[in-house]
Amino acid sequence: MCLLSGGLDSTTCLAIARNQGLKCYCLSFDYGQRHSVELQAARRVAHSLGAEELRVVKIDLRCFGGSALTDAIGVPKDRDEADMAGEIPVTYVPARNTVFLSFALAYAEVIGADRIYIGVNALDYSGYPDCRPEFISAFEKLANLATKAGVEGTSTLRVEAPLLHMTKAEIVRKAVELGVDLALTHSCYDPDPSGNPCGHCDSCVLRRKGFAAAGVRDPLAERLSPA
Amino acid sequence: MCLLSGGLDSTTCLAIARNQGLKCYCLSFDYGQRHSVELQAARRVAHSLGAEELRVVKIDLRCFGGSALTDAIGVPKDRDEADMAGEIPVTYVPARNTVFLSFALAYAEVIGADRIYIGVNALDYSGYPDCRPEFISAFEKLANLATKAGVEGTSTLRVEAPLLHMTKAEIVRKAVELGVDLALTHSCYDPDPSGNPCGHCDSCVLRRKGFAAAGVRDPLAERLSPA
Repeated sequence: MCLLSGGLDSTTCLAIARNQGLKCYCLSFDYGQRHSVELQAARRVAHSLGAEELRVVKIDLRCFGGSALTDAIGVPKDRDEADMAGEIPVTYVPARNTVFLSFALAYAEVIGADRIYIGVNALDYSGYPDCRPEFISAFEKLANLATKAGVEGTSTLRVEAPLLHMTKAEIVRKAVELGVDLALTHSCYDPDPSGNPCGHCDSCVLRRKGFAAAGVRDPLAERLSPA
Repeated sequence: MCLLSGGLDSTTCLAIARNQGLKCYCLSFDYGQRHSVELQAARRVAHSLGAEELRVVKIDLRCFGGSALTDAIGVPKDRDEADMAGEIPVTYVPARNTVFLSFALAYAEVIGADRIYIGVNALDYSGYPDCRPEFISAFEKLANLATKAGVEGTSTLRVEAPLLHMTKAEIVRKAVELGVDLALTHSCYDPDPSGNPCGHCDSCVLRRKGFAAAGVRDPLAERLSPA
């Protein structure tokens, strides 16, 4: 069971799980995000990496407001990592990974999966509270108390976050090593109407630096929005 | 921040929070359940108990299947507590309380609430894995790792489950003591089209026994579906 947004991180996470020979069932969310073009990326990636299926759950996080990814607040532009560091970004969606993992848990329980893969990453972007190792570990404990299988002692569910301690450059290199077609992925928080990346949001900035540090050419670089 | 289904338990839970002088913001879920009449009950109850607001989040648990509350599987009828004991009922919705609490957490974070009230009850109905004290406690730990406030150390979020160790009879007596209008509540898993309780599902059976043990007349008794 693999959470898949179609971005660089979750795509690499799925590739790692597939490379271990696992059958992968993917879950994406349509949560009223600005960048719903990422759902198309998730479909392309799931197909390309041979996932068993991709389910899309429609949820309504917009009713809570509070984030530039779902609200009308502007997405910050051209910030370097120093600007991003040490503060929680306005693109933080309240409790997003908690919500996503709880749906992943429901899905895992129904299909009988014993592992949940999530592409969170603690090193490059420490602003999100729910991307920290202690959060992942607390969710794993909760998951094993929350389900039928946990009560019956029939199985133990593991939450795998293989990118947790990798830099963006290491993630890019791992993706290349596993033969991932990175042209299929999508990272931008604020794409143009055709789905081209803006090149200026935090996600585009981190992606560019990651590819540069890895010494890899980003196939999306030539599709940058002219704006 | 109070999870409210409009049933006996969550209504009594809200009444307890209100009785402590708290401003209460309520959250209900439209999750494709058979008994969507309970959303009307939640609105009546929130209004009657003077809640600040009630938000309804539409989520799609049906896409996972796996429960008589959302699937076409039949709801079991006329089981006594011995039948219900020691097994996880087919009315169990996968990871439901995990999903509900994660939305509660998002809502609590946005409005700055420091407490989440949930009317789970471990004694009368031990079949649900996510109604156990250790589950609630694990979620509280997770919540304090998952949010901005938790990272910044500005507040500690508590998950309050005041009914956890009460019997159904004690819940009924507590509701009466707090002046709750129990005619506004709704408990049935399988109501008729007018919203009248069936009298035979597990929830109706437990409610009837609870009122009987408390020596209180259920105002819904005269509205039992004739079927």
